[in-house]
Amino acid sequence: MRRSALRRVGRVLVPALVALGTLTTQAAAATRDYWVAAVPVQWDVVPSGTDPMMGTTYPKSQTRDWTVVYRLYDRGWRHPRAAGAVPGPLIRARVGDRIRVHFKNLDFRFRNSHSMHFHGVHYAFPSDGSYIPGISGRGADVRPGQAFTYVLRAGRDSVGAWPYHDHGPAMDASIAGGMYGMLSIISRRARWPDREFVVALSSMRGFMTINGRAFLGNTPVFRARVGDRVRWDVMSMGDDFHTFHVHGHRWLRGGVPEDVRTVGPAESFTVSWRERSPGAWYYHCHVESHMMAGMIGLYVVGR
Amino acid sequence: MRRSALRRVGRVLVPALVALGTLTTQAAAATRDYWVAAVPVQWDVVPSGTDPMMGTTYPKSQTRDWTVVYRLYDRGWRHPRAAGAVPGPLIRARVGDRIRVHFKNLDFRFRNSHSMHFHGVHYAFPSDGSYIPGISGRGADVRPGQAFTYVLRAGRDSVGAWPYHDHGPAMDASIAGGMYGMLSIISRRARWPDREFVVALSSMRGFMTINGRAFLGNTPVFRARVGDRVRWDVMSMGDDFHTFHVHGHRWLRGGVPEDVRTVGPAESFTVSWRERSPGAWYYHCHVESHMMAGMIGLYVVGR
Amino acid sequence: MRRSALRRVGRVLVPALVALGTLTTQAAAATRDYWVAAVPVQWDVVPSGTDPMMGTTYPKSQTRDWTVVYRLYDRGWRHPRAAGAVPGPLIRARVGDRIRVHFKNLDFRFRNSHSMHFHGVHYAFPSDGSYIPGISGRGADVRPGQAFTYVLRAGRDSVGAWPYHDHGPAMDASIAGGMYGMLSIISRRARWPDREFVVALSSMRGFMTINGRAFLGNTPVFRARVGDRVRWDVMSMGDDFHTFHVHGHRWLRGGVPEDVRTVGPAESFTVSWRERSPGAWYYHCHVESHMMAGMIGLYVVGR
Repeated sequence: MRRSALRRVGRVLVPALVALGTLTTQAAAATRDYWVAAVPVQWDVVPSGTDPMMGTTYPKSQTRDWTVVYRLYDRGWRHPRAAGAVPGPLIRARVGDRIRVHFKNLDFRFRNSHSMHFHGVHYAFPSDGSYIPGISGRGADVRPGQAFTYVLRAGRDSVGAWPYHDHGPAMDASIAGGMYGMLSIISRRARWPDREFVVALSSMRGFMTINGRAFLGNTPVFRARVGDRVRWDVMSMGDDFHTFHVHGHRWLRGGVPEDVRTVGPAESFTVSWRERSPGAWYYHCHVESHMMAGMIGLYVVGR
Repeated sequence: MRRSALRRVGRVLVPALVALGTLTTQAAAATRDYWVAAVPVQWDVVPSGTDPMMGTTYPKSQTRDWTVVYRLYDRGWRHPRAAGAVPGPLIRARVGDRIRVHFKNLDFRFRNSHSMHFHGVHYAFPSDGSYIPGISGRGADVRPGQAFTYVLRAGRDSVGAWPYHDHGPAMDASIAGGMYGMLSIISRRARWPDREFVVALSSMRGFMTINGRAFLGNTPVFRARVGDRVRWDVMSMGDDFHTFHVHGHRWLRGGVPEDVRTVGPAESFTVSWRERSPGAWYYHCHVESHMMAGMIGLYVVGR
Repeated sequence: MRRSALRRVGRVLVPALVALGTLTTQAAAATRDYWVAAVPVQWDVVPSGTDPMMGTTYPKSQTRDWTVVYRLYDRGWRHPRAAGAVPGPLIRARVGDRIRVHFKNLDFRFRNSHSMHFHGVHYAFPSDGSYIPGISGRGADVRPGQAFTYVLRAGRDSVGAWPYHDHGPAMDASIAGGMYGMLSIISRRARWPDREFVVALSSMRGFMTINGRAFLGNTPVFRARVGDRVRWDVMSMGDDFHTFHVHGHRWLRGGVPEDVRTVGPAESFTVSWRERSPGAWYYHCHVESHMMAGMIGLYVVGR
C-alpha cells in the first residue's frame, strides 16, 4: 500500500478506534451501591483524655456522649462493614458512574427523622434529601425504621471531593453530632491516589475536631512514603471557617502556589502531590484558637 | 481574479473590517444615567412573621423598623421608579460604558450624611464616595437635601457583579440598615442572561437575611425554566462570612467544579449556567447558624 | 551558506544557548543570609492615641505594652539594622536561592522559648521550626540566649508572599503579640516591583491592626506614583478572617476581576498592577467591625 493510502485509512480508523474506546469506557461505567444507616453511637472527642501540647486533661463527661452517625453496611444492612464513626463512609465513584445510596434510619435512641443530602453529584429532585416544609418527599424525612434509596450520577463536573450530610428536619443538631461524610470522584480514566486522606473539620462539644477528634494522640495520623501520590479531601461542616495547612508542602491553585487555604462550612477541595519530603509534619487549621482547641494532627512521611 | 490575489485582498480587508467593527462598537458605548435617592422606609425583615421550618413566630416590634435605603427614580428624582428596598437598584452596564449615578440624599428622618461607593468600576478620586477626614470632598458627605453625581466607567476589568454601598461618615450604621446594592457588568458583545438573580447576604436586626429578608416565605423565590441561561450575582455585606450554596447544581471556578463558595464582606462573584434541572431547590448560606437564622430561599425551575 | 543549512545550525545552536543561559542563571542563584533575633519591645498599637474617624481617644494603658517581636540584625547579631517591629523583617529571595535565617532568642524579659516557622519555602524537617511534643528538635524550641539557623530553599512553587511566625511552645501568645513577618519570593528573572507593600492583618490588644497599628494616622501610609509597578503582600495572622480591599483599583484572579479578597489566618497572596490612578485611596479590611476597630489605611498615589 502506498503511504498516502495508509494515511487515508488511518484517518478513518483512528477516530473509529477512539470512539470504540469511548464506548468501552462508557460500557464500563458502573453502578455503585452503598448501604448506609444512621446509627446511635457513643462518641468520644478526646479518647486520650488529654491535650499533650498544653498538658490539659478532660473528663469523659465533657468529651463523650451519645450521638448519631452514618455507618457502612453490606447489602440489605445485614452486617456492618465498619464502625459507626465521624465522618461516615467515603463514597467513591468515577465520572459516568451511577451511585445508589441505600439509606436506613436505625436511630431508635433519639428517634429523629434523618436524610442524606449529597454535594457535587447530579440527581433528580426526589434524591435531594433536604426537608422543605410542604414540598419535599420521603427522601428528606426518613423516619426511624424506614429506608430510602438516593440515586446519584457522577458527571464531568463532579470531579473532586464533596460533603454529604443530614438535611432532614433535625439537620442542625445532626451536623453538630457528626452526621456527615465525603464523596470522592475521579475522572473516567484517572488512577486512584496511593493515599487518600479525608479531613472533615468541625466543632463538636466545644472542641475543634478533625474527623470528630481533638488534640494530638486523637486526631488522625496520616502516613505516606516518598514517591506516593497523596491526595487530601478537605471540608468544613457546621458554623466555622478554617484555614487548612500542611507543613513542609505546597500545592498549586489555578497555577498559584499556596500552603494554606480557607474552607468554609460545606466547602470542600482536594490537594494532591507526589510525596518527596520525609518527616513528621503537622497538618492543622491555622486559626490559632481552633488549633489550640484541638484541630491539629500529624502527617508522617517515611522514606 | 486568481486565488492568491483574493487571499491578498482578504489579508488587507479582514483586519480593516474588524477594526471598523471595533469602532462601531466603541461608538455604541453608552452613557447610562441612574437617578437614585437615599430614602427612609419602614422595612420588615420577616413580613410573614414566622419561620416555617422551626415554627417560630416573631412580633413586628422585633422585625420591623425605620431605616434608610437606596431608591430608583426617573430623571431629576421626580417620580420613584421602584419601591425603596434592600438591596438598592441593580445598576447595569457594558464594558466601555460611562455610568452616571445622580444621587440625592432625601433622608429627612435621621438627617445623616450619606454617599455611594462603587466597587469594580473605574473613576477619578472625586467619585470615590468614601469619607476621609480632611481629604475627601462633597461626594463622600452628601447632606440631606443635597445631591452629587458619581461618574464611573466600566473597564474590561469591571466584568462581573459588584457591591455599592454608603461610605459616608455613618457608613457602619447605614450598611447594617440596608444601604447597599449591586452593579452588574457584562462585556461589550455579551448577551444578558435570561434570568439574573441578585443575592445580597447580610445580618439585619439579629436575623441573617437575603436581600433584607429572613426565612422561607420572605426571602426571594427565584424562578427559571429548563433552557434558561441563569446568572447569580452574589455578595456579602457587613461583618459576616457566608458560604453560598445552590442545591442540585454545580459550576466551574478556574476549571474546578464547586457548589459552595465562601463570600466575605464586600466580596462578590457571579455563577452562571444553562438550566437543565427542574425542581424546587434550596439556595442558602451553608453556615448552619446563618441558615437557621433565616438565610435560606427557594429556586424553582419549571420545565 | 544555504538557507536550509542556516536553519539546521539554528536548530542546534539555539537550544545550546538557552541551556547556557539556564546554567548562568543557576550559577547566579544566591545564598541569602538573614540575621534575626526575638527581642522584647514596648509596642503601641495606637501611637496617636486617637481614631480620627470616630473622634475616640485611647489611653496608653490600653494601647501600649511590652511584647516580643522579630528584629533584623547584621552578621552575628552585632548591631540591629532596623527597629524591632510588627511585622518582622521582609525576607526576600529569588527562585533557586538558598535562604539561611540565623535566629537568636534575646527574649530575656518573658524568657519564653521561640522559633521561626516559614511558609512557602522548601526545607528539611529540622528547619520546620514547629514544636511537636517528643518529636521536634532544637529549632522548634530555641531558649533565651540560644540560636538556630533555618536552611530554606525557594522553589518554583515558592513564588509569592508568605507568612513566617513563631511556632514554639508559646506560639499562641507570641502571635497575638506580633511575632510574625513575611517572605517575598519572585521568579529567577523577574524584576522586583517598584513599590512593595507588606500588609499583615491581625488582632492586637482588642484592636484590629495593620502591621500592628490601628486607625488612620497610625496604620501605614503607602505611597506610589503613576507608572510604578506596585505589589501588595497580604496576609492574616491569628484568629480572624478579613477581606482586603483597595479603593479605585481592581486586579485579576485566575482571569476574573476582583477588588476584595478573603484572607484567613496564615493565608497570603500578592496583587500587582501598573499604577494609573492618582488619589488618596483607602485600603482596608471590608469586615465592617474590623474597619471600625482600626483596620484601615491610606494609599497615596501622586502623578
